[in-house]
Amino acid sequence: MPTTAAVQADPPDLLRRLQSLCRGRELGALAARLAELADLVGPDVARFERAVPSLRPEASAVERGAQHLVDLGGKRLRPICVALAARLGDGFDERALQLAVAVEMVHAATLLHDDVVDLGETRRGAPAARMIFGNAVSIFAGDWLLIDALRRVRKAQVDGVLERLFDVIEEMILAESLQLERRGRLDTTKAQWFEIVDGKTAALFRWAMFAGGKAGGASPEDCAVLETYGRHLGVAFQAIDDLLDLAGDPEETGKALFTDLREGKLTYPLIVSLAREPELEPLLREIIAADVSTPAQHRQVLATLDRTGSLEECRKLALDHAARAKDALSAMPPSRAKDALVTVADATVHRPS
Amino acid sequence: MPTTAAVQADPPDLLRRLQSLCRGRELGALAARLAELADLVGPDVARFERAVPSLRPEASAVERGAQHLVDLGGKRLRPICVALAARLGDGFDERALQLAVAVEMVHAATLLHDDVVDLGETRRGAPAARMIFGNAVSIFAGDWLLIDALRRVRKAQVDGVLERLFDVIEEMILAESLQLERRGRLDTTKAQWFEIVDGKTAALFRWAMFAGGKAGGASPEDCAVLETYGRHLGVAFQAIDDLLDLAGDPEETGKALFTDLREGKLTYPLIVSLAREPELEPLLREIIAADVSTPAQHRQVLATLDRTGSLEECRKLALDHAARAKDALSAMPPSRAKDALVTVADATVHRPS
Repeated sequence: MPTTAAVQADPPDLLRRLQSLCRGRELGALAARLAELADLVGPDVARFERAVPSLRPEASAVERGAQHLVDLGGKRLRPICVALAARLGDGFDERALQLAVAVEMVHAATLLHDDVVDLGETRRGAPAARMIFGNAVSIFAGDWLLIDALRRVRKAQVDGVLERLFDVIEEMILAESLQLERRGRLDTTKAQWFEIVDGKTAALFRWAMFAGGKAGGASPEDCAVLETYGRHLGVAFQAIDDLLDLAGDPEETGKALFTDLREGKLTYPLIVSLAREPELEPLLREIIAADVSTPAQHRQVLATLDRTGSLEECRKLALDHAARAKDALSAMPPSRAKDALVTVADATVHRPS
Repeated sequence: MPTTAAVQADPPDLLRRLQSLCRGRELGALAARLAELADLVGPDVARFERAVPSLRPEASAVERGAQHLVDLGGKRLRPICVALAARLGDGFDERALQLAVAVEMVHAATLLHDDVVDLGETRRGAPAARMIFGNAVSIFAGDWLLIDALRRVRKAQVDGVLERLFDVIEEMILAESLQLERRGRLDTTKAQWFEIVDGKTAALFRWAMFAGGKAGGASPEDCAVLETYGRHLGVAFQAIDDLLDLAGDPEETGKALFTDLREGKLTYPLIVSLAREPELEPLLREIIAADVSTPAQHRQVLATLDRTGSLEECRKLALDHAARAKDALSAMPPSRAKDALVTVADATVHRPS
């Protein structure tokens, strides 16, 4: 069982990370709302950072591998979802805190296994754990974080959330399996994209909202509403991820452009583009087969994406799902937590990383 | 959630598998006791085989990868431990059955991840799942079986067994980590060997006995006794595994000789041998570095093992721990299940695979 460190999360750091959700665009409109969000969840995130596993002095290679990834931080968007869902009800208590840590550890576990599967070399702007500690350590480190997460959920003793987490993790695994089977297949449809994204990304956001809601004492009806929010937030999040893979700033995202495509993953803008301009196919096939891509190829793909309006359609998809996430909350009484969830949905669409 | 098949386990097949635990040696003395064991646990194993996950028609690659390993069978020694521990008390009920399936699925999950870590090519006499389905599928298939196992344990609702399983899986992972860190290190000590084996092998046998005991209504004192049995059975089992890697019959074990050594794992007979005849070191170093070994090298290593009595000492270690496993049960009242556990301990030491 990992011990916990006593480092205080830096509140300006949180605001900075939240602002990174929309730096550069529409910051004027969102800045005040992000400051309000940081004000509300700042103490929660600080408690979260103190509760995250930290190394024993005699830590094993597996623990160090897990810690390497956890320490790189990330946006902490899933724990923030748990905290806000709990705050819609009775508040962010110790049980909700443990669920918030758990959702981030499940996410970290999937990243560790994904990097081995995809032979990923960088993650969050640093070398992937497998590049420092090896594939073997990364596999066991993912297993270890998964067990740590499940143990916390079990200890929290919130009715129904452990069972729901088993279901969600199974959905995630089966979606990863489908993604593997579709790898390199240029005939992947929008329906298949949604099936993969519902499992690999949206399911865990859904659980974060469900778990936080349950911990806060939400009714089954309200939990269903929160899950709807989580699912749409997850789809919006993935649509932007797909966009950033093709047209993001590697300095911001911490990973190289066109990584998904080289790994044979057909992202949403490419699915749209192929439907509108099938002549794109040979170029994509070439990049996937070579497992490398040149700036000239990038320019060529981007020109097609531009011509076909595919990036725009992907952003529209993200906006649409962010709107549906916000709509789901419409019947809830006004509260700071509700406003904050609206801000999270808006910021997710405009995030540059 | 996997569905379950309605195939009846063949009772002669069970006896055959049990006899494989000691075929060729002392079968005369053990034959009647093995028949008695098969008679007692035969119906339990048949129920177990029906409860093991089996494929949905539209199964994913990950599910097929998991099933490939599960279908290869194996000795089912861990589920038999659950069944017999339960039979010491109230019997092998539905809850105990689910715990029996769970222990085998956890075991299968570790094999899938181990094969990726060790680049294993064969398992149970067939190609490893990763050779058919790839490393990625094997990783996710292990994750999937782990979640399936944990969900069954959660559903069984037997007090304390889920928490204990989290602890045991963490012990297994940290032992795997230690094994990785000791890989290729010829200065590995007996103490380190025990630390690794306690975690990677004995812990799950310990849990099988604990879980079966708990399901059968055993007192905390009796559960402690059962765990002691499980721990020593696990050490005996691993000692024989170590022996078979060097001097087994590949036809029986289903894997090539000297695999552990080529992977840089220092097995018990080699630790003993190196202490008694340090001149062995350069040859071992050569095999590990080359990652291949020739029959001539095998003969040379075996001659040293012979000269130093190291195989004999390893077998003595197994016999000693089997005796300690049996001793742990001595205060228990006589029963068929107790006799069967004694038979399991004896047969484990004499198993050729």
